[in-house]
Amino acid sequence: MRPPTRSNAIRLVGFDADDTLWRSEDYYRDAQREFEAIIARYADLEDVHARLYAVEKRNLALFGYGAKGMTLSMLEAAIEITDARVSAADLQRIVAIGKSLLTHPVALLPGIGETLASLADSHALVLITKGDLHHQRAKVEASGLRDYFARVEVFCEKDAPSYARLLATMGVAPDAFVMVGNSLRSDIAPVLALGGWGVHLPYHVTWAHEAEADVALDAPRLRQATAVHEIPALVRGLGADRARGSRVR
Amino acid sequence: MRPPTRSNAIRLVGFDADDTLWRSEDYYRDAQREFEAIIARYADLEDVHARLYAVEKRNLALFGYGAKGMTLSMLEAAIEITDARVSAADLQRIVAIGKSLLTHPVALLPGIGETLASLADSHALVLITKGDLHHQRAKVEASGLRDYFARVEVFCEKDAPSYARLLATMGVAPDAFVMVGNSLRSDIAPVLALGGWGVHLPYHVTWAHEAEADVALDAPRLRQATAVHEIPALVRGLGADRARGSRVR
Repeated sequence: MRPPTRSNAIRLVGFDADDTLWRSEDYYRDAQREFEAIIARYADLEDVHARLYAVEKRNLALFGYGAKGMTLSMLEAAIEITDARVSAADLQRIVAIGKSLLTHPVALLPGIGETLASLADSHALVLITKGDLHHQRAKVEASGLRDYFARVEVFCEKDAPSYARLLATMGVAPDAFVMVGNSLRSDIAPVLALGGWGVHLPYHVTWAHEAEADVALDAPRLRQATAVHEIPALVRGLGADRARGSRVR
Repeated sequence: MRPPTRSNAIRLVGFDADDTLWRSEDYYRDAQREFEAIIARYADLEDVHARLYAVEKRNLALFGYGAKGMTLSMLEAAIEITDARVSAADLQRIVAIGKSLLTHPVALLPGIGETLASLADSHALVLITKGDLHHQRAKVEASGLRDYFARVEVFCEKDAPSYARLLATMGVAPDAFVMVGNSLRSDIAPVLALGGWGVHLPYHVTWAHEAEADVALDAPRLRQATAVHEIPALVRGLGADRARGSRVR
């Protein structure tokens, strides 16, 4: 990593991991379908999906994000929805679904390696994810991407105070930081709120919780990417904007 | 926090959290007893405790440490031990046991507040724990101790590389660092291996996994504390030892 050449350029680029660097929500969707297939043997319900999500939301403050909490919520929802008629063998199958969430291979999204290699040549990169510390660290190791990043941070919650603490520790002003990710709620909104920049790279599926965001898609410090290979030029463009003094609020 | 007055003094004091700052293993023991009482309705077994521990150990590489992984292991063990005869209602009780592990109050051990206040007056302190990020952060917030610590770190595993990375980030040489904790395996052995110092403060119960350690209790850089109020003098003594040049290997 070379230091940026323009004094006003973006100094630090943050990357979300799940559904930005590698597939994740797809596996959760598969897990939910398997869960619904098990429940269908006990109850002919239209709203199994909604009831599982309600249990997940209810448990979020207690469990935090991640596959282990999701598995405990699936077990609890299965017992509730079936009025405790679900068999221990089927609950064991749900535990196995949860374990498969923790062991699926890390499937990088197309073009990620080249994009990180290009950006790491000119910028310091930081990987910022949330949820289960053990699982996220294991995925980073398995991804082969570890060496592109100056730091890997697992937050409890991707909110403005968490981003602010990280930037303070690294001595980076918010307006020299851009965050790249698929979640408007977790990757973009809190960084814009701090005075940083965001590059939104949508993924083809979004967990309902992450879709709950209040961000104007034409916010002045937000850029939209439609493909990962656009990101280096977008990030360098932010640096150029800043150097020209066209700094927006 | 004032900077240390002696140039050769200990610069950074690490504190373990569970069973060093506050009670933890007691709650796990209670949870295990409740688990065993449930299983006793299905099987008259002497070795329920050992079989649960075997499931926990088997799952450790997948789940990591913490109450959520422990709860999933209890559920899996209950199904295995009863040959899937356990009722969904009893499995729901086990989920509730797990939730109670995540919600018990944070009960500080006697003298902790005074000890940290005394040490924080002369040393930078860091809280170093492991396991479930969300639960550990929640306990730190609930403890009221957050402001004594320059940093709070949740490791995946308290091994020598994790401690080495933290010390490098903080710019502290290993022999200017002392770690205080109850676990020889997690708090003491890896720090001694790096060339740091350890103060062992035993707790009245130790999880079997943490008791598996290969540390000589008379290691030159290890001190034993029998009560928490001894720690400030012990730590300052290490600084004095170093200043007098009586530095041991």
